[in-house]
Amino acid sequence: MTDQTMPTALDLPMVDPLPPETQKYFDICVEKLGMIPNVLKANAFDIAKLNAFTGMYNDVMLAESGLSKLEREMIAVVVSSINKCFYCLVAHGAAVRQLSGDPKLGEVLVMNYRMASLDPRQSAMLDFAAKMTIASAEISESDRQGLRDVGFSDRDIWDIANVTGFFNMSNRIASATAMQPNDEYHSQFR
Amino acid sequence: MTDQTMPTALDLPMVDPLPPETQKYFDICVEKLGMIPNVLKANAFDIAKLNAFTGMYNDVMLAESGLSKLEREMIAVVVSSINKCFYCLVAHGAAVRQLSGDPKLGEVLVMNYRMASLDPRQSAMLDFAAKMTIASAEISESDRQGLRDVGFSDRDIWDIANVTGFFNMSNRIASATAMQPNDEYHSQFR
Amino acid sequence: MTDQTMPTALDLPMVDPLPPETQKYFDICVEKLGMIPNVLKANAFDIAKLNAFTGMYNDVMLAESGLSKLEREMIAVVVSSINKCFYCLVAHGAAVRQLSGDPKLGEVLVMNYRMASLDPRQSAMLDFAAKMTIASAEISESDRQGLRDVGFSDRDIWDIANVTGFFNMSNRIASATAMQPNDEYHSQFR
Amino acid sequence: MTDQTMPTALDLPMVDPLPPETQKYFDICVEKLGMIPNVLKANAFDIAKLNAFTGMYNDVMLAESGLSKLEREMIAVVVSSINKCFYCLVAHGAAVRQLSGDPKLGEVLVMNYRMASLDPRQSAMLDFAAKMTIASAEISESDRQGLRDVGFSDRDIWDIANVTGFFNMSNRIASATAMQPNDEYHSQFR
Amino acid sequence: MTDQTMPTALDLPMVDPLPPETQKYFDICVEKLGMIPNVLKANAFDIAKLNAFTGMYNDVMLAESGLSKLEREMIAVVVSSINKCFYCLVAHGAAVRQLSGDPKLGEVLVMNYRMASLDPRQSAMLDFAAKMTIASAEISESDRQGLRDVGFSDRDIWDIANVTGFFNMSNRIASATAMQPNDEYHSQFR
Amino acid sequence: MTDQTMPTALDLPMVDPLPPETQKYFDICVEKLGMIPNVLKANAFDIAKLNAFTGMYNDVMLAESGLSKLEREMIAVVVSSINKCFYCLVAHGAAVRQLSGDPKLGEVLVMNYRMASLDPRQSAMLDFAAKMTIASAEISESDRQGLRDVGFSDRDIWDIANVTGFFNMSNRIASATAMQPNDEYHSQFR
Repeated sequence: MTDQTMPTALDLPMVDPLPPETQKYFDICVEKLGMIPNVLKANAFDIAKLNAFTGMYNDVMLAESGLSKLEREMIAVVVSSINKCFYCLVAHGAAVRQLSGDPKLGEVLVMNYRMASLDPRQSAMLDFAAKMTIASAEISESDRQGLRDVGFSDRDIWDIANVTGFFNMSNRIASATAMQPNDEYHSQFR
Repeated sequence: MTDQTMPTALDLPMVDPLPPETQKYFDICVEKLGMIPNVLKANAFDIAKLNAFTGMYNDVMLAESGLSKLEREMIAVVVSSINKCFYCLVAHGAAVRQLSGDPKLGEVLVMNYRMASLDPRQSAMLDFAAKMTIASAEISESDRQGLRDVGFSDRDIWDIANVTGFFNMSNRIASATAMQPNDEYHSQFR
Repeated sequence: MTDQTMPTALDLPMVDPLPPETQKYFDICVEKLGMIPNVLKANAFDIAKLNAFTGMYNDVMLAESGLSKLEREMIAVVVSSINKCFYCLVAHGAAVRQLSGDPKLGEVLVMNYRMASLDPRQSAMLDFAAKMTIASAEISESDRQGLRDVGFSDRDIWDIANVTGFFNMSNRIASATAMQPNDEYHSQFR
Repeated sequence: MTDQTMPTALDLPMVDPLPPETQKYFDICVEKLGMIPNVLKANAFDIAKLNAFTGMYNDVMLAESGLSKLEREMIAVVVSSINKCFYCLVAHGAAVRQLSGDPKLGEVLVMNYRMASLDPRQSAMLDFAAKMTIASAEISESDRQGLRDVGFSDRDIWDIANVTGFFNMSNRIASATAMQPNDEYHSQFR
Repeated sequence: MTDQTMPTALDLPMVDPLPPETQKYFDICVEKLGMIPNVLKANAFDIAKLNAFTGMYNDVMLAESGLSKLEREMIAVVVSSINKCFYCLVAHGAAVRQLSGDPKLGEVLVMNYRMASLDPRQSAMLDFAAKMTIASAEISESDRQGLRDVGFSDRDIWDIANVTGFFNMSNRIASATAMQPNDEYHSQFR
Repeated sequence: MTDQTMPTALDLPMVDPLPPETQKYFDICVEKLGMIPNVLKANAFDIAKLNAFTGMYNDVMLAESGLSKLEREMIAVVVSSINKCFYCLVAHGAAVRQLSGDPKLGEVLVMNYRMASLDPRQSAMLDFAAKMTIASAEISESDRQGLRDVGFSDRDIWDIANVTGFFNMSNRIASATAMQPNDEYHSQFR
């Protein structure tokens, strides 16, 4: 029997029973994270949608990249801060605290990334993500060149753009559906 | 030999040769659409990324849904108009013209959807998509209830949210990389 | 008998019969353009207003100037895109397609002029028009000097300012009255 | 000999000598107003442009209308306040003080019209002008109906829209050219 | 007996009788200014609040500083113009006219400070105040350095920040409570 | 000997030695809070400024009021979230966690107060504070009446306005001077 508490304001219960492969994936989440992230439960009313979401999430956030996993989580938090997405700020704020071992870094990126102590590379990366979030239509070649100038390759720029894009999608879906973050995140890695 | 003209401002050539499955998919595009959409070429420097993108695109835009394909394309255009994404306005404006058989509808959604003659259902759907795009953090239960009041189910609301979210992602990636739409779209279905 | 279909949401029928001079002007429109533009019909409830409007329109858009007619239409479209004026985007988008012989140019100016391939002169001209439209109170001497630096004379700057100003007027009047563009424009010069 | 002090930041001297009809018009200004308004001098480098401008200005601000001259000046000031146009706030603020005999009304419209004591008719009129100035693309039938509900006819709505439109044009031209108001206005009708 | 006309939209009568020290302070206001500024009456329902307010006001606006009293009033007006605070624009606009002996300076700062003739020091000071008012989270070391570059000390920067901060507080309190300026200000120092 | 580490980007060392009364106040801070809040150190270069600041702070945040201390801290966090003030979000986020005993409440107010579970009274209070922060010039009698309708007295409304105003001041001063929050706050009351 699966836990059917609704993770969003929409009445979309998970498939029950879950297909074995999904159940196994969720079991691994519990084992590794101590919980099933609510975004996964929210998608689990339709396994094809869940798989499409996790397929893209895993590629964007976990695949081989010139950006470290921490850097991708930093982008996630900065984008979510601009969009004021409660779910993503809680979940990815915790990830920044965990991966950096620096609770204060997680806080400052949630609150105002411009107050963080960042090297020029990470600062340029987050400025690009912020501009993409606020005013993507105004991005020009000089913005891309600014990233190359601090050492990013064109492939890295693709990855910055895709992580930023991804959270501009997931922030909006989470806010539009009132997705609630798992309580476990709040006290983690403080 | 694949066409290696860059579809974006980034120097990311397609895998060459393409894996047979990808080549087949592109051949079908040429057969059905008369072209390979540049967004596919842009992702084809890394087949895992291409597959993640098409996996999500196909689920969001083509899977079974309470929203018609035309309605999903209408959302795509309205979101892209707010974000001023040249690529998506060209490609999905053509799709609205095609699926609706109404060239004027494609134009008005590109320019200002509030000037379109819409029934209350589609009007509510596009207002929700616009609010999600501009101010997702301000969406509340009354916005969701407004969709239910014109006949959308919670599952439909999920789909509206996901189409809207998807184009808030792809608009930003296209603008950040200066993705160019295929020339073929401009004169189609006028 | 004049065609009394309302071109706006206001119930303001044209003077009937039209004065001979106005009737002659409208006959020329039909002969040259295949239609009477709705903005003229909308003003024709009061011939003095119609004449004041056409007097200014003709001076701004058609009089001798250091700006070509195409350049003035380009400004018209960029301003109308920022203001999301359906009427003006349709009518002047068609004019750009016609005068440039380049349908794609009309489209990109409607959608996001920053994605157009422009020379530095036209790029500076459109940036100035955009700033005047969005934040006129912040224009300073350095903005004017920027236009001089790419070759515009002070008289040209006056003309850029007046074309931009004119469409900031007409966009708002058209949107405030729900003015509908003539259907003929949509398929022209594609 | 005409006064050739530049009323704007552009080097566009008045035609010299002025044509007799223009000279006569300027002489009447001096007689009635104690000055030639700088906006007229600014246009006088090209008499056709001056005539087009005064033709429209006189129709919009002085012709027969369901709006009083004071009401049209009130709109002028509210629009100019939103656009922060120094020239128009000075000149039309003085006009409101003169026509109303209420210096405080001139001040409050310059500063924040929502703090003025207005009857529902004038309040609705100024709210419509403000919305047209800030977000014309969002005006809908309910906004127009709101004006009808407080007693405005469709012809009055046309006039509100045109006064509002006109100052959205002239504000931008004045700011773009750094047009200076005549010093005489500042102390008038205090 | 004190004048109990409400200076705001809130029903908060002044303490009656006022404590001798407060009464004396108000008597001095009448003697020196010809009135008791309404902001003082508004606070006088609670003498501790009045004293806290005047304590901070007097320190910020009147204490020894590298900024002249006029410069502090200039900041007050520019901040109040951005926030569209009727009360503060009237009261501090009069103060700028008085302290500068230049009525036009008072007007231009109310309307659009960028149109004022300012030296680089005052221009930098007002740009910093404007940025603090509109986008304080984006202020960086380069903004502070810009102030140092035109001759401000770090203590002066503290004072600029505090005057700007103070009016961002008092503007909002005045607007939130519909505080009315004393009529006497309007005609002063014109 | 006082700790002279600069709490801001300005070189403004504390008075040394501190006057006995100030030293005593700071000793109490260390005893009760385990630290001297940096905002106090930042003001301590000039004891008159420090006293003016603490005088107003103590009145606004600690004096008798119809608002509880927690409610005032909730306003502080919501205002600081809109203004993205790192210092105030850290310090007052901790205060909300402490006074409410609900770490999650502190988080959600930092991130997006609209996602918090609030009763109608607190919800109306925070909506008013948000509107005062973003668009104070648009506050009207209906906004004040909305507060009365959920049970606030006019005196409470004064207090809501003053807390909101105060943090619009202190947020801007903190951001303009790059004020750093004490590290102790981050892990408190999680």
